[in-house]
Amino acid sequence: MQHLWEISTTECAGGKESILRRGNVYQIANGYMGYRGTLDESGPEEAVGITLAGLFDQVGAAWREPVNAPNGGFTRVAVDGAELAAPGPAVASHRQTLKFADALFERETVFMAGGKQVTLASSRFLSAARPNLGVIRFTVTCDQDADLTIRTGIDANIWDLNGPHLRGLAAGRRGDVLTVEGRTHEAGKPVAVAEVVTADLGAEDHLNEQNRSLRVFRLRARAGQPCTLVKYFAVFTGHDRVTAPIAAAVEAVQAARRLGYAGCLAQHDAEWQRRWARGDVVIAGDEAAQLALRYSILQLLMVAPVDGSANSIPARALSGQVYKGAVFWDTEMFMFPFFLHAYPEKAMELLRYRIRTLDGARRKAATEGPGYRGAFYAWESQDSGDDACTYFNIGDPITGRELRTHFRDKQVHISGDVAIALWEYFKVTGDDTLLVQGGAEVILECARFYYSYAHFKKDRGRFEILDVIGPDEYHERVNNNAFTNMVVRETFAIASATVEHLRQRHPAVLAALLEKIGIAGELAGFADAAARLYVPAPDGATGVIEQFDGYFKLRDATVEELRTKMVHPNEYLGAGQGLAVPTKIIKQADVVMMLNLFKARFPAAIKQANWQYYEPRTEHGSSLSACAYALVATEFGDLDFAYQYFLKTAQIDLLASYKVYVGTIFMGGSHPAANGGAWMTAVLGFGGVQVESDRVTINPRLYRKWQALEFGLEFKGDRFRIRITPAAVTLTPDRLNRGHPVFVIAGETVTCAPGEPVTVDVAEVANSKAS
Amino acid sequence: MQHLWEISTTECAGGKESILRRGNVYQIANGYMGYRGTLDESGPEEAVGITLAGLFDQVGAAWREPVNAPNGGFTRVAVDGAELAAPGPAVASHRQTLKFADALFERETVFMAGGKQVTLASSRFLSAARPNLGVIRFTVTCDQDADLTIRTGIDANIWDLNGPHLRGLAAGRRGDVLTVEGRTHEAGKPVAVAEVVTADLGAEDHLNEQNRSLRVFRLRARAGQPCTLVKYFAVFTGHDRVTAPIAAAVEAVQAARRLGYAGCLAQHDAEWQRRWARGDVVIAGDEAAQLALRYSILQLLMVAPVDGSANSIPARALSGQVYKGAVFWDTEMFMFPFFLHAYPEKAMELLRYRIRTLDGARRKAATEGPGYRGAFYAWESQDSGDDACTYFNIGDPITGRELRTHFRDKQVHISGDVAIALWEYFKVTGDDTLLVQGGAEVILECARFYYSYAHFKKDRGRFEILDVIGPDEYHERVNNNAFTNMVVRETFAIASATVEHLRQRHPAVLAALLEKIGIAGELAGFADAAARLYVPAPDGATGVIEQFDGYFKLRDATVEELRTKMVHPNEYLGAGQGLAVPTKIIKQADVVMMLNLFKARFPAAIKQANWQYYEPRTEHGSSLSACAYALVATEFGDLDFAYQYFLKTAQIDLLASYKVYVGTIFMGGSHPAANGGAWMTAVLGFGGVQVESDRVTINPRLYRKWQALEFGLEFKGDRFRIRITPAAVTLTPDRLNRGHPVFVIAGETVTCAPGEPVTVDVAEVANSKAS
Repeated sequence: MQHLWEISTTECAGGKESILRRGNVYQIANGYMGYRGTLDESGPEEAVGITLAGLFDQVGAAWREPVNAPNGGFTRVAVDGAELAAPGPAVASHRQTLKFADALFERETVFMAGGKQVTLASSRFLSAARPNLGVIRFTVTCDQDADLTIRTGIDANIWDLNGPHLRGLAAGRRGDVLTVEGRTHEAGKPVAVAEVVTADLGAEDHLNEQNRSLRVFRLRARAGQPCTLVKYFAVFTGHDRVTAPIAAAVEAVQAARRLGYAGCLAQHDAEWQRRWARGDVVIAGDEAAQLALRYSILQLLMVAPVDGSANSIPARALSGQVYKGAVFWDTEMFMFPFFLHAYPEKAMELLRYRIRTLDGARRKAATEGPGYRGAFYAWESQDSGDDACTYFNIGDPITGRELRTHFRDKQVHISGDVAIALWEYFKVTGDDTLLVQGGAEVILECARFYYSYAHFKKDRGRFEILDVIGPDEYHERVNNNAFTNMVVRETFAIASATVEHLRQRHPAVLAALLEKIGIAGELAGFADAAARLYVPAPDGATGVIEQFDGYFKLRDATVEELRTKMVHPNEYLGAGQGLAVPTKIIKQADVVMMLNLFKARFPAAIKQANWQYYEPRTEHGSSLSACAYALVATEFGDLDFAYQYFLKTAQIDLLASYKVYVGTIFMGGSHPAANGGAWMTAVLGFGGVQVESDRVTINPRLYRKWQALEFGLEFKGDRFRIRITPAAVTLTPDRLNRGHPVFVIAGETVTCAPGEPVTVDVAEVANSKAS
Repeated sequence: MQHLWEISTTECAGGKESILRRGNVYQIANGYMGYRGTLDESGPEEAVGITLAGLFDQVGAAWREPVNAPNGGFTRVAVDGAELAAPGPAVASHRQTLKFADALFERETVFMAGGKQVTLASSRFLSAARPNLGVIRFTVTCDQDADLTIRTGIDANIWDLNGPHLRGLAAGRRGDVLTVEGRTHEAGKPVAVAEVVTADLGAEDHLNEQNRSLRVFRLRARAGQPCTLVKYFAVFTGHDRVTAPIAAAVEAVQAARRLGYAGCLAQHDAEWQRRWARGDVVIAGDEAAQLALRYSILQLLMVAPVDGSANSIPARALSGQVYKGAVFWDTEMFMFPFFLHAYPEKAMELLRYRIRTLDGARRKAATEGPGYRGAFYAWESQDSGDDACTYFNIGDPITGRELRTHFRDKQVHISGDVAIALWEYFKVTGDDTLLVQGGAEVILECARFYYSYAHFKKDRGRFEILDVIGPDEYHERVNNNAFTNMVVRETFAIASATVEHLRQRHPAVLAALLEKIGIAGELAGFADAAARLYVPAPDGATGVIEQFDGYFKLRDATVEELRTKMVHPNEYLGAGQGLAVPTKIIKQADVVMMLNLFKARFPAAIKQANWQYYEPRTEHGSSLSACAYALVATEFGDLDFAYQYFLKTAQIDLLASYKVYVGTIFMGGSHPAANGGAWMTAVLGFGGVQVESDRVTINPRLYRKWQALEFGLEFKGDRFRIRITPAAVTLTPDRLNRGHPVFVIAGETVTCAPGEPVTVDVAEVANSKAS
């Protein structure tokens, strides 16, 4: 099944869109940085990007965005004086491959140059064991003797959307190590790259040209004899806990060189084996689904933040600077569940990011509205937690003006999304470390924010949440959005539960926390709000929940109808006067997203009624939409529909058939939220896994094509492999487990002793229903 | 000074704009109907309009608007076979005159036809004594013998913006009376017109042609001998309290004919004398101001509703169908004060309209928002009180789409404007009839609406009014608009005061009312809201009141800057994405309007600070704006500025230099709110009159050019003439007065016995300050 562990393409078309698309699909990453799937010889015009996690910079009034490092992976070859570059007219054949097993990028390109056939081949990985390190083995082979010039080193010509971000770029050399260092514009943070090469190609010259620090090998290549070099490059920045980034980078490449290519790769592969052992999902009988889902999981495993970094995953991960490299609710709501259930250390890291940026959320609350208190998390969060989202966030192609949107100031559910994730972490892992180490403070500050945001209707005896945007961004400034109100109510309840937990288990921590943020007098208010907050309920007759006050009174329409009314192909359908605003057309799952997030609280009939009502009214204008509909569809048994949306979600980055340019704005890059949505749909949806605080229930509803679904699951610190077939569910607890947790499988309760697999026969209910 | 009692023009230009403008300026009205200042021979192409008060109709999906009656004033003359019509190539000279004393329209036009000079002259009035009646004396004089054909009768070709409104039009004859009757489309209400003529012109034929029912006189006119006819026409509709409108109309013209032209005119003039005796304002020393103000007052006296009709005055009065003939807040806030202080019977009539349409306001509250209760008065109110305002109220010339505005659903101050006017009526007249006859019910239902609209901020211990539009319509959906919150708080206070008054004086009425609307349990809530409703206060340092939450954070800009950014000359600056929305530019007085409405509660320094802050940021895009700034400017002594804005307001309809077409939409017509604003600025502003519940204070601040200001004032049922000169204030109480009210004039308290004039010397404070 090796073919389900890699993708490759022989396409080598020029043209910006093709190049950008391949760069996205074949990217690699190691949590510290991402390296777009460009070729050794590529430069900024091919959108080479080495995007650094968590390091941001703003130049002038342009958007703040993550910094790209100078490219230590640059190599360019000339044969008999003619430079070889793909894409290009000399390309005879090309193949590039991404190996899922260890996130290894390979390329092999055959050029015809002056009648000679020259093959460039390389393998590239960003070390999973040493986050600052990249390694490339590069080989040139000629079918005839030829004069080769190999220029390799660091290319500081960087592709930026709103750069350049590094000023004072300086190239240097420490022994045979090349270095380039610069500083960011805004904060003056150093970014240093070192590169060293091992090669048996004779003497090298050094050359600084056009912002490139290069070593130059000039040699006579013999027919059929490969000329090989191995490049080690390292990136260190002011965010690394080192005194001198440049010295650390030099040391890192020297250490890597001592270890050698094979040694580095072995460390890297070992780490990747551990990752896949936990994260892989096997789908037997459906190769398309298997490939897409595994690719999606690869994306998540590649971009998971480095341990101890307290970084999170941006909406476009490490694929570039799109969306300002900002972290959205996507992380907690769509990516977090994968890590929580399969790789909780990374889930913890994601949450540490929110704890680290609490002060930014406090600043936002203090400045965003009158009387706001507590923590209002940023809609677009970068390093400080201040909001990178602008008030005028969307260009209107009709007038050329910027449209005022309320993404920044009204998508208040973000704070609750964070609080819910924090609580979920505790619930699923049983580990209250995060709560003690800042998580409780975050939760209480989020509740405080909501209390300051909430209004009380005296005549109706209830709290209301007014003037918000729910997940459906086409309808701004709505009142009592069902999703938002549920999230807010949950936040108040979690705040109370958090205080109660600390009171019982960490009374001194609680006392210190209440003292620190002076919140003791507000707790009764949170409990009151949890009890009396209004949340739109299912209609008594139809079961449909009104998305917000007045939604049902909007005009009914179809997406097609709106499209026919557009006067510009790129016009935005929301922002107050957009075509969707007065209609029931929604951008993405909203009530259905709520039904998924709070799935245990609603019966299948309500889910079905809402799904059927809202799905035809959903544009799916967000990559977050399809998986929510897929997940809920599995709950009421429409598995064909669920499968269709699952595949759409799982293949989004693999096919990359979305638009990479909207107007003049580059929108390409990966979709880690969809990647996470694909995992959720497979495991939580078709697998029917639901993790409660005291048990795991599994009610499988495999898609009919699937002979088996197998995945890892962690619960309360113990690990399990779970294999579901149409006939049975087999739990294999790790032998190192310590607990004996309860699983309820298709209604049957079993207890799971360490190292002792259990199999439960299941009726083929879901399967027969779907076929 | 006769020239200050009339206007006339010799202009007779063709062209739609000129014709429309003259039709506006020279219109006459009698509260029952308005007759645009068109000529006897004019037809729909010259926009003849006989607009009926309070009768509305909707055709298909077009705007609902007032109905125009068939034109019973039509007369057309042919000389030797050639038809005479002005404007036209045969016109040698023309003059048309509007006499203020009795709202009499006159025209005299000399034509040259085939070498003969023919003079058409007519006088026209709509009887102030008999509201259904119009009378016209028409004369043709030829300088040579000539064959005349005079066609006169009823022209049912009606100028409508969204008509035709009358279907089943049928012409008939009862004896020598011509009739035309039709029915409105929507409700099938009959509209009947009768016409009769007295003339000594020989035999008449009858002719029905092109929707005209005509009598035709053919005669040989002798040189220099006038041929005269007198036309009596009457309009009755299904709204008149008659069994058969057509019979009533016939009887009305027959009775008028018996009375004769002179008799009808005498009755009419007597009524007008009574009106002017109460309403006229004399400004000595400033003819421009005198003429403009008297013209403005004429407009108000002409359109004051017929006694017992319970009609109100639309924003364009009876000048046509613009703004759907709807009644806005304009009436209570800008026209009502004139009537209240000078002609309280009409003020009562205006308020009876709101009482009559209470059920419409209840329907609006019940359907407009979740949980709304009580009375939410219509933004655009027609006959039923249901809202004629559409949600998509403004065309966007850039996209050709209709823009969603929130005029209808968020301008909630309208209910409080009504409640305040009701209470003012009681306060100034001392007459609680209206309170007992439905006014108290309106007030309580308005308070009930606000209580259902208000939210309580538990953490701040205050009620808030969220999501509104204040007077400044460029900023929609704002929170805690100072004007609105003040109005709402006042409404709660008025509700409590109303209940208290009824408890003391009409306990049985109160008991029945509380029982009828089941509101007893809500009264404590109103008192609580009155006590704890948040109203933005003047800033401690600057004295400036923030127009709404967050206004101070908007971008500062100038009106000129916005104009340069417009991509279409007619683009609207508001509606969510308009150019003014993110800026501090406001459409019209908002905080300053509040300071005027609640003038007794703010010191002059606060008024000045806010005036100076907001005026440069005001576009004055509404005719309601200038007078509010003028009024407040008189309070802190900038009389030059006040005068400039006074004149602008007072001359608006006289000069009619506003655009009558915006795009394809006809926007012409009169501006009774500005007419009322002119009166307020003269009497309440420069006159410095302030009427409290127990006294009248007068602190004059005459404009330096004015030698005297004299006006009528009614207080607690007694009448006074007040004459202000720079040196003294003279009060002349009517000898029929019954009370001895207190006046405080420039700080000196005087008591006013019936029939005994009082003069108080005043320091020339204001005058010296301004010069």
